[in-house]
Amino acid sequence: MESKQTDMALQLRSLVKSSGELELSLGSTPAPELGPDDVLIRVDAAPINPSDLGLLFGAADMSTARQSGTAERPVVTASVPAGLMKAMAARLDQSLPVGNEGAGVVVAAGTSAAAQALLGKTVATLGGGMYAQYRSVKAAQCLVLPPGPTAAEGASCFVNPLTALGMVETMRREGHSALVHTAAASNLGQMLNRLCIEDRIGLVNIVRSAQQEQILREQGAKKVCNSSAPTFMKDLTEAIVATGATLAFDAIGGGTLAGQILGCMEIALLRSANEYQRYGSTTHKQVYVYGALDTGPTVLKRNYGAAWGVGGWLLPPFLQKIGADAAQKLRARVVAELKTTFASRYTKVVSLAEALQLQEIAVYGRRTTGEKYLINPNK
Amino acid sequence: MESKQTDMALQLRSLVKSSGELELSLGSTPAPELGPDDVLIRVDAAPINPSDLGLLFGAADMSTARQSGTAERPVVTASVPAGLMKAMAARLDQSLPVGNEGAGVVVAAGTSAAAQALLGKTVATLGGGMYAQYRSVKAAQCLVLPPGPTAAEGASCFVNPLTALGMVETMRREGHSALVHTAAASNLGQMLNRLCIEDRIGLVNIVRSAQQEQILREQGAKKVCNSSAPTFMKDLTEAIVATGATLAFDAIGGGTLAGQILGCMEIALLRSANEYQRYGSTTHKQVYVYGALDTGPTVLKRNYGAAWGVGGWLLPPFLQKIGADAAQKLRARVVAELKTTFASRYTKVVSLAEALQLQEIAVYGRRTTGEKYLINPNK
Repeated sequence: MESKQTDMALQLRSLVKSSGELELSLGSTPAPELGPDDVLIRVDAAPINPSDLGLLFGAADMSTARQSGTAERPVVTASVPAGLMKAMAARLDQSLPVGNEGAGVVVAAGTSAAAQALLGKTVATLGGGMYAQYRSVKAAQCLVLPPGPTAAEGASCFVNPLTALGMVETMRREGHSALVHTAAASNLGQMLNRLCIEDRIGLVNIVRSAQQEQILREQGAKKVCNSSAPTFMKDLTEAIVATGATLAFDAIGGGTLAGQILGCMEIALLRSANEYQRYGSTTHKQVYVYGALDTGPTVLKRNYGAAWGVGGWLLPPFLQKIGADAAQKLRARVVAELKTTFASRYTKVVSLAEALQLQEIAVYGRRTTGEKYLINPNK
Repeated sequence: MESKQTDMALQLRSLVKSSGELELSLGSTPAPELGPDDVLIRVDAAPINPSDLGLLFGAADMSTARQSGTAERPVVTASVPAGLMKAMAARLDQSLPVGNEGAGVVVAAGTSAAAQALLGKTVATLGGGMYAQYRSVKAAQCLVLPPGPTAAEGASCFVNPLTALGMVETMRREGHSALVHTAAASNLGQMLNRLCIEDRIGLVNIVRSAQQEQILREQGAKKVCNSSAPTFMKDLTEAIVATGATLAFDAIGGGTLAGQILGCMEIALLRSANEYQRYGSTTHKQVYVYGALDTGPTVLKRNYGAAWGVGGWLLPPFLQKIGADAAQKLRARVVAELKTTFASRYTKVVSLAEALQLQEIAVYGRRTTGEKYLINPNK
């Protein structure tokens, strides 16, 4: 019976055409041939993370989005500005599946013992293409959820929890002792705040409004700096002095914030220096940009000596760098604390077809703090 | 007799006053007490490197420079713009000696065997405060020049040669195989070009004019890209494709060039990719900023995936990081190739008093490619 369903399984696809048009649609995928080590997951829950939106929308201007097709098979089209088509070159005219992570029940398995052992289990995976009713992945890619959490509770096992853990792990491996985080009231930011409280790590949360500041303070955050306050630079410097943070993770990317953080770190470091250091503090100050809430250019004034760095940070290469054993330890911690430190909250659960309704796109596409959608492809 | 001279030894000093005024002057230094491991060098040659100008002029606007004092003891004063005084906070009201490196003859030595062994030898040192008639340093800080090179020939043993070697060493240690260099027609750039030719390392030279391009081509450079040419971005991409460079050293700092280099590297890397990589190439691309010919902000468009970094690079912490043995190997190579790979050319030799003449400051302070001054404090 399951195999019949898989024959007509729906999958959400994103296509950027050379004509300059984005097309989102639901396609049917044929039942996959399972190799010995493969399992077939009935996907019951897959979150829409900020990191999914880039692949989903490409460089399209979603204010131009139009809807066509049927209620069951909606099609959304939108225009990609001509100037941004160059950045799309590598994905042109390829219908790409979307959805980094999700969870569900293993309904079929290959012949290997590892695959067979997963039959009937609820698993989570970072397999890509999870906005689909069924998805086949390697058994080794599955994280078996212990009895208790539902697929919905396990759907966000990877991206946010491992990113938060990855930030703390990067901090330790690169010799820093405290963190600065921007857009800190996000789902990920709240998770990082819980993690840092639990691990007793100094965390400076940067937010954009008094309301966001309140959200974090109510969750026990000690250092919260509001970038729209007139005292922001002073507040940030004092928070960095108090925590000793020399590493920041920045979800915003564009504008002057990354450089301002480096500047405040430098002021904090020089305050404890005894003599004039002509090239500034010799302590390395680092900002990793891991998001692009502001897609404009990063502007660095370089008024913070010579011991500084700004660079991209991404979860998959980080996990690859630390190796399988270290990554497995992080995953085990996520499962152990899935209902506490790493719990995710969703504002709405939608079906695949509902996810392609313009009014829903308008909400989850806004990347607004606090709005988080979950797709249930078998709803 | 030497000790009499040292009693009245002149030293060039730079002072930024809290009143917002820069004052350059020649002060008398008392004869130093030599510890067992110290030696006293009669400084016969000390270059004015771009890296000396920051300490010398501070943030002063040298177009406001005025001269007073006597012909033998000139005093130069200039205004520091109010907005830049904050950056001067750590050096306010301290009379600082200037001159990173230089060479001369050891005229007095402490009681230790190491110090005594240097008596009468011509040595080079990166001791700081080398714009002085006499300078005492630790014996271990001295690089003994073999018979042959004069003090003038050995005066630039450290900053440029070790920076060029440090760039190549950084390339090897961080897993890159070729280099991009900006402001590549500089003294340092010409040296790096000779070094890369000798070591068969791919080097992409970026210059600002056809004249600079010609200088490098006449010295055997194969890849030279003129940033003022309309085909610059295409030329740079092709040169990066041909060399496989994923590391750049940038002397300019401000503006869009660092980001353009990363963008061309990304295009070159994606050209060899087989499938769409949603976060761009996974190969790390790095630009180290080691100068500030443009003191304006660095503007990064971040249109080159997630595997990128931009950061400060400075010789002393690099040498510290690689350790004493590795640094010693680099120094030995400099001495061995002092008259070939690491030869420096000077356009003018001046005395300490001449170095404080406004018309000379106007020339060496311009940071113009090709103009390089040498100070002979005992001229």
